[in-house]
Amino acid sequence: MKFKSLKRAEDCNARTGLLETPHGVIETPVFMPVGTQATVKTMTPEELEQIGAKIILSNTYHLYLRPGHRIIEEAGGLHRFMNWKGSILTDSGGYQVFSLGELREIREEGVTFRSHIDGSLHFISPEMSIEIQNSLGADIIMAFDECIPYPATYEYVKNSVERTTRWAERCRKHHKNEKQSLFGIVQGGLYKDLREKSARDLVSMDFKGYAVGGLSVGEPKEYMYEVLDYTVPLLPEDKPRYLMGVGSPDAIFEGIIRGIDMFDCVLPTRIARHGTVFTARGKLVVRNAAYARDFSPLDPECDCYVCKNYTRAYIRHLLNANEILGIRLTTVHNLYFLLTLMEKIRRAIEGGYLLEFKQEFFKEFGYD
Amino acid sequence: MKFKSLKRAEDCNARTGLLETPHGVIETPVFMPVGTQATVKTMTPEELEQIGAKIILSNTYHLYLRPGHRIIEEAGGLHRFMNWKGSILTDSGGYQVFSLGELREIREEGVTFRSHIDGSLHFISPEMSIEIQNSLGADIIMAFDECIPYPATYEYVKNSVERTTRWAERCRKHHKNEKQSLFGIVQGGLYKDLREKSARDLVSMDFKGYAVGGLSVGEPKEYMYEVLDYTVPLLPEDKPRYLMGVGSPDAIFEGIIRGIDMFDCVLPTRIARHGTVFTARGKLVVRNAAYARDFSPLDPECDCYVCKNYTRAYIRHLLNANEILGIRLTTVHNLYFLLTLMEKIRRAIEGGYLLEFKQEFFKEFGYD
Repeated sequence: MKFKSLKRAEDCNARTGLLETPHGVIETPVFMPVGTQATVKTMTPEELEQIGAKIILSNTYHLYLRPGHRIIEEAGGLHRFMNWKGSILTDSGGYQVFSLGELREIREEGVTFRSHIDGSLHFISPEMSIEIQNSLGADIIMAFDECIPYPATYEYVKNSVERTTRWAERCRKHHKNEKQSLFGIVQGGLYKDLREKSARDLVSMDFKGYAVGGLSVGEPKEYMYEVLDYTVPLLPEDKPRYLMGVGSPDAIFEGIIRGIDMFDCVLPTRIARHGTVFTARGKLVVRNAAYARDFSPLDPECDCYVCKNYTRAYIRHLLNANEILGIRLTTVHNLYFLLTLMEKIRRAIEGGYLLEFKQEFFKEFGYD
Repeated sequence: MKFKSLKRAEDCNARTGLLETPHGVIETPVFMPVGTQATVKTMTPEELEQIGAKIILSNTYHLYLRPGHRIIEEAGGLHRFMNWKGSILTDSGGYQVFSLGELREIREEGVTFRSHIDGSLHFISPEMSIEIQNSLGADIIMAFDECIPYPATYEYVKNSVERTTRWAERCRKHHKNEKQSLFGIVQGGLYKDLREKSARDLVSMDFKGYAVGGLSVGEPKEYMYEVLDYTVPLLPEDKPRYLMGVGSPDAIFEGIIRGIDMFDCVLPTRIARHGTVFTARGKLVVRNAAYARDFSPLDPECDCYVCKNYTRAYIRHLLNANEILGIRLTTVHNLYFLLTLMEKIRRAIEGGYLLEFKQEFFKEFGYD
């Protein structure tokens, strides 16, 4: 993997870059649609390509449990298994395992947990997370970390982040496949000194890229931005920086302004399945009765396949009648909207007018 | 609408033909995928086109209840509402209404029934069925009939079929839109004299086409073939003949051999959603554990999009994980299989080798 930072904004820390993986060149800042179970829900790989997706994220925890990473390895890796020709990033499984709450137990060696599918008992260590991710064969893989919920005490976060750093070192040592780039994940909750220590320790281990993890876990957005304010400057200029689990337009703008290059989130696809779509004028709940006779497109300013071919009335009918085509259409539209927004943001950084573009965008769109 | 019978087999009653509607020319015998709620479940109109679908069926009862035929009329009709450029046939609503069992009451004037969605009370008469179908604007519309379940007494069927004939006359009188072709439906259960009377009465009313209804409702298949044996010859040579609700390969062959031109059925799409696919060697339950590590296509002899790009192992994983892409892929494959079979059957009729082709096909496929 190669990363080249191209243009740096003068009035903020935003930058454009090129990320080259064995499966293509990705312009950054980039949004990665989430394909939890080896599929971006409802979509084919060709449809993802058509809306401009270059890299997707898939979840190690889910694929380890079902169908099992060995089956995917036998299939020739995740790219071949799901027939996706672009790049893939897999998370480490940490986030999902720790989300299990009472179903898991953390020790120095690793985490014991029960499957959310059948309750069976499993154990994942940093080494196993790397082995599973090696089997899956994604272009970018992540160190095994504990993603700490909000709020958490200083004491808890301190112990956790120190362990996460030790785990990161174990991951680094265990990872042998040169074709896969391993990223470290900065943790530390909302505690500045812990974030700083985590960043410095990880940077000294020389990962191929760095993620800021443990944000967008329930804390007010201002706190997240504050953490980025003091954390991102500690990360190397010549490596990609990835803000995990963030996908709302406002937080994407704020992350980019603070120097973030990569994002992923289930938000655009999840709200799509619940009947909410992005439009130039803000979010629209197309499921609402108000749209029963509205024969205009989801977003009159959008030129995606969905907006060129279908009306709000039709999509509302499909959602209402639990027809799968309905959530296919809202999913395609939302991802197109977000990927197109990323493209506009990249052009705005290049053109030196990102902050003006942001102001213009939110005049119509509105923050959450 | 124009219908031209082209080639008639010498060793059976099979024939090819061309059916021309305001939305295109359809080669017969034809299979019509079912789009109950203004969508062939999981598929876009473009995907239907790509697999060769020329005409689809949609259900008057469902569209009347949701979103309501007036909304579809306001949208510019069903073609525009769902963005389907090919031809459409709507049923009369009779089949669904009568399937409601205790929720409906039949009188000479029409049928009172309760909605399966919200229990609300509705009334449909032959005239209203035509009006609703006029609003929907399909190319072919059907007379309002009672579809009698199997078994039924001679007395019940006699009364019912006489009323269906009176209803057909009321439909004919009420239908004014020249662009929509109204078909009559022969009923009569398994009683030869009632089928004959129904056919003769309807033929004298000069419909644009004739359906054989009330079959594939639970009776042994041999009885269905027997009814076709004596009913089809009573229908005019120069009009299309439509066997309603039939879509299994064996019954399609048997229908075609007896002179049927049109078929519709939810079978290929419904079994797809349950994880069963057609292959050259018979049906395959891809959901089964046996396919967890099977990296071959659903049907190695098939050249559809699905078989060219995905493995049984991947599709099994998707179905198992309740991922929508799984049923999208099985649906596309099953419809492609059936539409391609229809194409092969048409070529076999033209080439004069239909019966040989049938024997060859079932050597591998196997009857149900």
